[in-house]
Parts: sequence; structure tokens; C-alpha cells
Amino acid sequence: MKGIKYLNQQESIVMDELLMGAKYGLSTFQLMELAGLSCASAISKVYPKQSLTKKVLTIVGPGNNGGDGLVCSRHLVQFGYNVDIFYPKRTDKQLYHDLVLQCRNEEIKFIDELPNDIEKDYSLVIDSIFGYSFKGDIRAPFDKIIESLCKTSTPIASIDVPSGWDVEKGMIQGKNLFVPQLIVSLAAPKLCTQTYYGIHYLGGRFLPRAFIKETNLTDLLPEYKGCDQYVDISISSSPKTQSSL
Amino acid sequence: MKGIKYLNQQESIVMDELLMGAKYGLSTFQLMELAGLSCASAISKVYPKQSLTKKVLTIVGPGNNGGDGLVCSRHLVQFGYNVDIFYPKRTDKQLYHDLVLQCRNEEIKFIDELPNDIEKDYSLVIDSIFGYSFKGDIRAPFDKIIESLCKTSTPIASIDVPSGWDVEKGMIQGKNLFVPQLIVSLAAPKLCTQTYYGIHYLGGRFLPRAFIKETNLTDLLPEYKGCDQYVDISISSSPKTQSSL
Repeated sequence: MKGIKYLNQQESIVMDELLMGAKYGLSTFQLMELAGLSCASAISKVYPKQSLTKKVLTIVGPGNNGGDGLVCSRHLVQFGYNVDIFYPKRTDKQLYHDLVLQCRNEEIKFIDELPNDIEKDYSLVIDSIFGYSFKGDIRAPFDKIIESLCKTSTPIASIDVPSGWDVEKGMIQGKNLFVPQLIVSLAAPKLCTQTYYGIHYLGGRFLPRAFIKETNLTDLLPEYKGCDQYVDISISSSPKTQSSL
Repeated sequence: MKGIKYLNQQESIVMDELLMGAKYGLSTFQLMELAGLSCASAISKVYPKQSLTKKVLTIVGPGNNGGDGLVCSRHLVQFGYNVDIFYPKRTDKQLYHDLVLQCRNEEIKFIDELPNDIEKDYSLVIDSIFGYSFKGDIRAPFDKIIESLCKTSTPIASIDVPSGWDVEKGMIQGKNLFVPQLIVSLAAPKLCTQTYYGIHYLGGRFLPRAFIKETNLTDLLPEYKGCDQYVDISISSSPKTQSSL
């Protein structure tokens, strides 16, 4: 193990395109299912359901990171969690209609507005607003949402990339951004998480062997244990995997 | 918990159609991914990889049970197992072409013939030949394959239904059939497994809450633990869940 590879934005985009192209033939459905399941599994490890006295709120963005959040929420309900979803800007694609329907069939409530005092009703917020393809300014309505997340005392678990962070540089000075308590990186961590000192898990255990060789990632990804869909890569808790960075 | 519901063949067919219909909107891709993953997870629990001195052989049938076996094999490789696949009668559908491609990209070898002495090369056979929709006679080439499985001393793990068994009555007298060491039932066990005394796991943790209510399955399904994708429902090892049958 030489250390962990942290992807820049372009590498992340190329990785996903390659996985879903003709050569590897993985579908969005499959990757999103495994990604969302791994996030739910990691969250259930870090926040056991008996430790949460209130509900979980998933905030869902307009793209694939939002899709991961929808799948994650569905699995959390399967694990016995009580989840609400806030999904203010919906994507008009069949995949997303199906994912919403699946959540409704888990009897998840979709709320129409973010409450002023998130901490009153929620023990945990899952941030699945923006992922590795985020660039530029935070547009409405997500600017106000991220403002609310900066203010709340409820812990936040971010899927792949904390929303609003620069995918490579992390928190940009002068911008009002939040630091999540947990990040679940997907497939491989992004550059912005390299100096993140919170709880950091990796999920999305689906990179094919041939792909790992082709993209020179051999020995640059942490090892999962048993049939776990996630692995702890926190700087504080896994000195071994980080030692040679 | 009143006991476990064992599905008859018609109920199994209706369940799958309902899950993938407009009302629940789950896709074959999603269900197969979760089913296959749960099988791989259960198998890794029962047969830890360090306990297998030889390879695993997955025998893949022409339908969805075969698809579950392909997905299961891919995840087993992700878990560090060494898997070969025997897939003598391929289905000419994009889904199956993709699943085969995904296995090839895990560097799984597809063998062209079943060896005479399975036990020489393989520590475990995964039987994903026929599932809950099997009826009637076992046609070539699967008749000979099942004959071989009757003879081998290699343990067999069957996905959902042991191939050749009547889905409701189990082993039919006078037919040459095998008894697997492990059955991983999917979504809900089928009638044929009701008196099965081997190791019996349930996987396919994806039945939506609304579906469970609609189909009157509340309290008739075993409880999964934590984020586990499988649960042990062996008659010998879970007296509690079976007590009121």
C-alpha cells in the first residue's frame, strides 16, 4: 500500500464515464444502488439508530449526488431509520422519478420546506446536494440551504463531497461553508478530503479489477474488510493506510 | 413475529412482477444487484475465503437466477474470492451481456466445460441454474450438470431454489437431485425450503414497506440486523424466528 489516491475533478469525471461506457458496461442504476447502499451502511455504523433520538433529514440535490442520497435514504429505512427528504429541485428523468417512487413506498416523507430549526426535528442531516462535478457558485435554492446547514448544530454527513466545497481545494476562504462530521467518499476520495480531519469513510465498492489496473490505482485504494461496503479512512483512525502518503 | 411466510410459485411470480411494475418501480438491475450482493455476502459469511483452499465455481442458468449468480460472482471477487463461471446457455439480452462483461472485467474465467472431478479444482459450487419459476423437466444441458452436482463431494450453495427441486414440494422422489449445504433464499423463502435442514439464509433486503403491507407480509419476514444484507433463518440456528410456525 503506497497510500491513497485522491482524485481531482477531471479524474473523477473520467472515472465515472469510463465505468459506464462500453468497455466496463456498468449502469447508473447499479453504481447508484451500490453507492447509496454503502453510504447508508457507513452512516448506520457511525450513527447507530438507537443513538439517534430524532429523525434523519436527507437533502437531495439535482444530480447524481442527489440520486445517491435517495438510494441511501431508502436503505436507511430498510435498516430501521426514520427518514425525511427535502428535494427542492427535481430532475425530470425516469431514473429519478423511480427513485422518488421507491422512497415513497418506504413511507418516507418529502418535506416542502427546510425548517428554521433543523435540530428540533432532526438528529442527523445527510447532505447529498452536490458531488464531484460541482463548480462555480452555489445557486438558489441551494445557497440558502447551505447557509442553514452552516448554522445548525445537527451533525451533517456528506456524500462524496461536502456541498459547496471546491472539489479539489475544499473550503474556499471567504465563503460561508460547513464542515460535515462524516464524509462518505465514493469509489475513491476526492482531493478536497485529503486534509479532512473528521470521520471519513470510503464506499462504492465496485471498481473492477481491470479498471483498477487500467487507471493505475493498484495499491492506491484502501482494502475493504469481509463483505463490508465501506471502509474507515479517517486520518485519525487508520494511520496504517495513511502512513506513506 | 408469527413465523416465516414461505411463498408458493405463483406468489413468487406475482411478487416479482409487482415489485417491477409501475406501482413500485424497482428495476431488474437494482433487484438483481441487491440479490447478488446478498448472496455473495451470505456465502462469505458461511465460507470465509481463508477456509477455501480451491476456487469457487458458479454455474449459471439461462434466466434471472443465472443473473443473480453473475452478480454474486462479481461481488465475491470484490471480496477477494477466486471465481470461475460455467455459463453454458447464454441469454441474448443486453442486461446479460453487461453482467458477463462486468465479470470479465473482474478477471473471472468462463470455463467451457464442467470438469469431471469438480472437487479437484473447486472448494465450493454456487448453483444459480434455476430459480422460483422452474417447472417440469430438466432440459439439456442442465440434466447432465445436475447429475454431476449429485455426484460431487464439493459443497453446493444454491441461490433461492436448489436447481431441479420442485419450487413447492422440494425434492421429488425418483428424481436424481442434490441437497445443497447452503440455500440463500431471496426476498422471502419458497415453500420447498420449509423443511430444509441445511444452512439457510435469507437475502434480498429490498421489499418496500408499502409492499409488505399490501401483500400481508407484516410480521411474516425475519428481521435483518444492522446493515446486514442477509439473515440466518436455518431451522437449527434460529429457534426464535421459527418457534410459532
